[in-house]
Amino acid sequence: MTTKVTNHQPPGGGAAPARPLTDVAPTRQATPGEEVRSLLAGATTAALATLDEGGHPFGSVAPFGIVADGTPVLCISGMAEHTYNLDRDPRASLLVVEAPRPGDPLALGRVTLVGTVELVSEAGRDEARAAYLAANPGGIGYVDFGDFTFRRLVVERIRWVGGFGRMAWCTVEDYNAAEADPTRPVAASAVAHLNTDHAAAVLAIARVFTGHPDATAAVVDRLDRYGLDLVVDTPRGQAMGRAAFVKPVAHVDELRAASVELTRRARKLA
Amino acid sequence: MTTKVTNHQPPGGGAAPARPLTDVAPTRQATPGEEVRSLLAGATTAALATLDEGGHPFGSVAPFGIVADGTPVLCISGMAEHTYNLDRDPRASLLVVEAPRPGDPLALGRVTLVGTVELVSEAGRDEARAAYLAANPGGIGYVDFGDFTFRRLVVERIRWVGGFGRMAWCTVEDYNAAEADPTRPVAASAVAHLNTDHAAAVLAIARVFTGHPDATAAVVDRLDRYGLDLVVDTPRGQAMGRAAFVKPVAHVDELRAASVELTRRARKLA
Repeated sequence: MTTKVTNHQPPGGGAAPARPLTDVAPTRQATPGEEVRSLLAGATTAALATLDEGGHPFGSVAPFGIVADGTPVLCISGMAEHTYNLDRDPRASLLVVEAPRPGDPLALGRVTLVGTVELVSEAGRDEARAAYLAANPGGIGYVDFGDFTFRRLVVERIRWVGGFGRMAWCTVEDYNAAEADPTRPVAASAVAHLNTDHAAAVLAIARVFTGHPDATAAVVDRLDRYGLDLVVDTPRGQAMGRAAFVKPVAHVDELRAASVELTRRARKLA
Repeated sequence: MTTKVTNHQPPGGGAAPARPLTDVAPTRQATPGEEVRSLLAGATTAALATLDEGGHPFGSVAPFGIVADGTPVLCISGMAEHTYNLDRDPRASLLVVEAPRPGDPLALGRVTLVGTVELVSEAGRDEARAAYLAANPGGIGYVDFGDFTFRRLVVERIRWVGGFGRMAWCTVEDYNAAEADPTRPVAASAVAHLNTDHAAAVLAIARVFTGHPDATAAVVDRLDRYGLDLVVDTPRGQAMGRAAFVKPVAHVDELRAASVELTRRARKLA
């Protein structure tokens, strides 16, 4: 069978990226825990994997919510296969995938939360119910049915994949301590806006902060509260670079000012 | 823990549906195998569940295709967790869910194909590659990378859920013999068209074919190649009913004529 590899293997190899020509200051990046929290913040439904009677992993659809301490909660029917499975063996995982968008499904962010499912105690029921309904308002039609019970996933391992080539195991400690990136809900539209309406500013940022003063073009690939990931064209080939905001964006309303300040600095240093 | 129940248990019970007043001829319905084939025909990506090192079920994103005999094929990287898992234990399932639409996620159709994953043989590689790329054209960017291999899921059990209250185990024999419903790709828009533009015809059909001659209103809930599922209002309460087309729709282009013929018959028999 296949052996472990650590890089994709394109037929004939691939072009090496251009190297920076100047020193590049290290930039802060979101931790895996922050990535996972950001992804979960907008999610309402997971693929629940349980173990069937024969020990096969069994996938099913499971709406979920998240209570204050980060624990995912389910509300499942005694009529459902996954409930039979969990009552037999509580080991499970929840796979949560970003909302689909055009393009390759493997480019979508996703996270797998692996752990053990327990019944929510009577003391925890109100919080679980509120969290579940906050994410899934339609649940009001069934959460109080006699055959439904709230369950919590005690998370033991977390695997995050941010798309092609971005992936990490996330510790439970990191996940517990992290918060969702406040810029995430607008990140895609902010990236499009920067690339469409501020191409000259993006190029200035790329030249000054990513070590490619000879850049001929640059586009923002991703944006988070800490800065911008850029794809930079140079006469020496293409490169990925990163430019940090002066300080992390604490609220989505500060994103515009942070981008303006970064551009101002780039123009001053150019 | 919970015990098996066979009906949802609304608090205080629910209203009983109105019973037909006249004899209703039995109508043909899609088999679970046909439902599964119809659902898979439009799908490109599954949630793959595998077993991790500790024996927990582990969910991941897996684009897939289907070869001529109905076997799902994957193309997975030696760098991915699910590949490590499958090389250790080949038991797996694929969960495929209908494209999201507004409303409750539990109303979406889905299927879980449970089985064992094998490497595709050299003889089967061309067919697997073509089927995978037909569903996932973006795969051209990686299918020939040295770290990717094609795998096939030998299906052993199939669980279908068509939405609230519609679910069945599907035998492998039924799945193998079934074909996708040709009306499925247009079913939702055809239902909307019938309800919006042909309400009087729908009411006539409901009165004549569902055993509720006193119906005051009716809407089409679902449509398939064999007929219409209707929600019928009567002075005695609401009921679900079904009206069969005169013959099964063999091609999507015949759907309009089948609906017109059904309406004509209803008006003649009224």
